Amino acid sequence: MWRNISNIKKIDTKLIDKGVALRSYFEDKRILITGGLGFLGSNLAHKLVNLGSEVTVIDNLNPRYGGNIFNISGIEKKVNLIINDIRNIEAINAYLANADVIYHFAAQVSYIDALDIPLEDQDLNAKSTLLLLEFLRKNNPSCKVIFSSSRMVLGKVEGELMKETSPTNPLSLYGIHKLTSEKYLQMYYKDFAIPSVILRITNPYGIRQQIKHNKYSLVGWFIRQAMENKDITIFGEGNQLRDYIYVDDMVEGFLRVAESDNAFGEIINLGSGVSTKFVDMVRTIINVVESGSIKFVPWPSNYENIETGDIKTDLSKLEKITGFTPSVSLEEGILKTYQYYKNNIKYYL
Amino acid sequence: MWRNISNIKKIDTKLIDKGVALRSYFEDKRILITGGLGFLGSNLAHKLVNLGSEVTVIDNLNPRYGGNIFNISGIEKKVNLIINDIRNIEAINAYLANADVIYHFAAQVSYIDALDIPLEDQDLNAKSTLLLLEFLRKNNPSCKVIFSSSRMVLGKVEGELMKETSPTNPLSLYGIHKLTSEKYLQMYYKDFAIPSVILRITNPYGIRQQIKHNKYSLVGWFIRQAMENKDITIFGEGNQLRDYIYVDDMVEGFLRVAESDNAFGEIINLGSGVSTKFVDMVRTIINVVESGSIKFVPWPSNYENIETGDIKTDLSKLEKITGFTPSVSLEEGILKTYQYYKNNIKYYL
Repeated sequence: MWRNISNIKKIDTKLIDKGVALRSYFEDKRILITGGLGFLGSNLAHKLVNLGSEVTVIDNLNPRYGGNIFNISGIEKKVNLIINDIRNIEAINAYLANADVIYHFAAQVSYIDALDIPLEDQDLNAKSTLLLLEFLRKNNPSCKVIFSSSRMVLGKVEGELMKETSPTNPLSLYGIHKLTSEKYLQMYYKDFAIPSVILRITNPYGIRQQIKHNKYSLVGWFIRQAMENKDITIFGEGNQLRDYIYVDDMVEGFLRVAESDNAFGEIINLGSGVSTKFVDMVRTIINVVESGSIKFVPWPSNYENIETGDIKTDLSKLEKITGFTPSVSLEEGILKTYQYYKNNIKYYL
Repeated sequence: MWRNISNIKKIDTKLIDKGVALRSYFEDKRILITGGLGFLGSNLAHKLVNLGSEVTVIDNLNPRYGGNIFNISGIEKKVNLIINDIRNIEAINAYLANADVIYHFAAQVSYIDALDIPLEDQDLNAKSTLLLLEFLRKNNPSCKVIFSSSRMVLGKVEGELMKETSPTNPLSLYGIHKLTSEKYLQMYYKDFAIPSVILRITNPYGIRQQIKHNKYSLVGWFIRQAMENKDITIFGEGNQLRDYIYVDDMVEGFLRVAESDNAFGEIINLGSGVSTKFVDMVRTIINVVESGSIKFVPWPSNYENIETGDIKTDLSKLEKITGFTPSVSLEEGILKTYQYYKNNIKYYL
């Protein structure tokens, strides 16, 4: 018993130390978040405001994507909000030139939509990163850039452990353009010493995510369907493994890398580290929401080519560099998400 | 002696068989060459006209690049010539829709210039491939696409044998955008069965190459400098190894893959297979041209980051798939190139 108590105390102290370290790093820092009204950007903005940063949010509020004014409800008076498109780089020059850290999240967010709008996907998910880096190279080369990439850069992983060194054979334009952005960031780090970190996110979900359609996060969409007591469609048996990461864990990862010197120049996986069967994710939603049902249908033929296989995420690099391991369970994350949408659903329909 | 004669006969028969196979494949085929007035494109056009193909050449004659009307001198009445930019894809619709094979060579060709014109490099070296594939997906999905990629997709190789599976960490925008095009081609092959082959070229040189400046092929530029009896500048000691491939060998490789069914969906190295010290390449030029001299200077500091290390090319995949191994020696290739420019220098200044 004594040992257990001692362990708990030790962990608490470490967490408090880390909280102090994060505050001491982020307090009064000028942080720019592109796509800052979106899911990840807005959750990060809330946390950064709490840590005392000067937060600037830029978002084009393109209705296709996740930007939502309500996402900064509660901190709207504490952030600079710029409604513009990051491709109009002249319009945000002053903020880019003065930023200490840029979180670059503005993106076309659906790997399915990418094929309907291939050039816009290239523009938003690749060209905008190049524009940003070119500006920083000339005007603010010590600015840190932290980029949200995706496991979709890998393509089919065939049940292998997903490592940062796994081969990159993307099966979608979305994945190709995320990969192109990764290559820009790594080249500008090597050739021009612009400090950047690439986080490859697995399957993200949580509060403030758009739930208007099924092309982005299925977790959010299914929570909405369950709340509306609808059938949730599963292709095949739903046995494919996915790594669902809750947004609070993601935000913690994105904060930690900014103050970890060893993170710069690196690609780092950011997942929950837990592999869950797709069908079990759906069952958890139905159990938590206490509504909705499952409908099994065969795989549509055009989905087979882009099915990525079972996902098992190696998080050892994240832990080694930042000391952080995600901890929110799927049930806990789904419960928090459900409670959020129950209270705020009218802002997300 | 008897054995040697027998061997020679055997080789001759194989070459004749292959010549017959190439003619039988290419005769009356509709071939579109983007960038067809450039170095590789025009040399291929000459060969294809001889093989009886219906050749269409498209080129924007951008003075930055290698397009040159004189390059199709002798076959100008046997090719369809379209002066336009491939980004105006509507203008070449009819040719794309009817092509049996597209050789996609139109490109920004200097990895040094890429950084001065990052968006144009992205446009020409990545976006144009996407436009082409999107058009083919909708209108001509069985058309073969053969793409000229570059060893620059790899970045630093550190003296390792350059294989098709080597890690891709490009150090230039040129290399990143060539890699992006590779990923497009592979994705459209996997997802939509558009048959494509990617050839990764090492250091190409030969007749019909532009020699206006030193930002493209140094071999051509140095031949010009030697012909003008100038100093040829070498950074450091010039001991870095390069793989110089003569254009006739390149053209043969590009022809062979089009009629090799096993080549589709593949990335294949195309080099000479011989590693030559940079300084020895320069000495060979000075010996062949019998003019010019060497000047050694220290490496400029900004070059160190993009120096790619010694190159040794693994050609086993090329040989296995096409049965072809390049055979033109550096001395022979430089002699042919020199004789060409001696007779035609006024068209290349």
